[in-house]
Amino acid sequence: MRILLTNDDGIYAPGLLALAQALRPLGEVFVVAPERPRSASGHSITLHKPLRIEEMRLPDGQRAWATSGTPADCVTLGLDVVMEGRADLLFSGINAGSNLGWDLTYSGTVAAAIEGAILGLPSVAVSVVENGSDRDFEPAARFSRRLAEAIRDNGMERWTLLNVNVPALPQERIRGVTVTHQGRRQYVDRIDRRVDPWGRAYYWLRGSLKEETPDEGSDVHAILEDRISVTPVHLDMTAYSLIAPMREWKLEG
Amino acid sequence: MRILLTNDDGIYAPGLLALAQALRPLGEVFVVAPERPRSASGHSITLHKPLRIEEMRLPDGQRAWATSGTPADCVTLGLDVVMEGRADLLFSGINAGSNLGWDLTYSGTVAAAIEGAILGLPSVAVSVVENGSDRDFEPAARFSRRLAEAIRDNGMERWTLLNVNVPALPQERIRGVTVTHQGRRQYVDRIDRRVDPWGRAYYWLRGSLKEETPDEGSDVHAILEDRISVTPVHLDMTAYSLIAPMREWKLEG
Repeated sequence: MRILLTNDDGIYAPGLLALAQALRPLGEVFVVAPERPRSASGHSITLHKPLRIEEMRLPDGQRAWATSGTPADCVTLGLDVVMEGRADLLFSGINAGSNLGWDLTYSGTVAAAIEGAILGLPSVAVSVVENGSDRDFEPAARFSRRLAEAIRDNGMERWTLLNVNVPALPQERIRGVTVTHQGRRQYVDRIDRRVDPWGRAYYWLRGSLKEETPDEGSDVHAILEDRISVTPVHLDMTAYSLIAPMREWKLEG
Repeated sequence: MRILLTNDDGIYAPGLLALAQALRPLGEVFVVAPERPRSASGHSITLHKPLRIEEMRLPDGQRAWATSGTPADCVTLGLDVVMEGRADLLFSGINAGSNLGWDLTYSGTVAAAIEGAILGLPSVAVSVVENGSDRDFEPAARFSRRLAEAIRDNGMERWTLLNVNVPALPQERIRGVTVTHQGRRQYVDRIDRRVDPWGRAYYWLRGSLKEETPDEGSDVHAILEDRISVTPVHLDMTAYSLIAPMREWKLEG
């Protein structure tokens, strides 16, 4: 199996190394990741400047490639340049921080998996929910390997991806795995206004999670219950239930 | 009606001005847009550096605000800072170039409308399909006004947006309006490899559309038929049909 690995925390992120080490027993792993952190980069791609790829070494001495692009760029460069068009599976992560509910479209980690799905690869995004300073990637790495085996054995529908979130807990405190739907997530207090030394205003984006009771069966709910969440995701964002009512709007003429 | 306007082509783009002028008869229009072009920025947001907002004037002398952020950042800054949390409607565009099928998640224009939907505003992304040098925004601007009136009269379901694509044709050659679903779009020849004056490789992302017969009823199909496409979009990307089969994967334990 030829596996493409990327992330949005950058080539030196410990979550990427943990994932590479977990998947190497399953086949040939090609790590192609951004040269610097690209969190919250969404599904951005680089069209207005050229991209570079540098071969380098991960901290464990294994070969990898750093690119000047976004996570989605890394998928195209990884598949078409580094892997010469031949890949069987894509993993993105392990992200330090959750990608739940509506955060999905902001996430560079998930965007890389969306890009993989568009390019026809079975694709998985993996994130660990932050919990203070606890960033133990081991349970997420172990589950990633299990999931890669399950995809190899069961196949995945074309043009879909899996979004995985793992509680930031030791293995023995994780209570199981739930196949979930994408939940809802809203933020409040989104702006932090400050004044610079010259008296001019500037703004930080921030935001606290709005207190809400999460949907039963959602990704957010699974994490609250200390379970691993696996959400199957497709590329179609159409709100089908609105098509017929909108035809009554008489937009013609 | 208080209307927030943004785009991804930047504050000086002619499509933004055309949209502002079309919507001003319906209420108070607040233009808050990126200070420079941010195409293909996806749903990226700026978390790692602070943002600036500058008040300025559009080419027609009307007040506007340029920000250092992405299209999605402009929506948060526009709503929370410029409009003090009170807005009734968001429009993003008019983009010079289509946003059809899977291009939806790459698009900064659509990302701004996704951000608006997350923040609870009825939100619309409007694009004109490019056709050589023809960039006449007038039919798209006219349709935007009609659509804003229809939203005012019919309401819009919370947490949804509309993705509008208008053929790059004179008004009299546009054959009508279709409420569509999101189609599929794939690219081939995605990489253009070149060598710099020092002998090192670099890469442009490019891509030609793969020849495919578009789905009947899709956005891509409507545009091929010289019709305006309006796609209702929601934030839930779950592939619901895969939840039950995936439960058979026995990922536990």
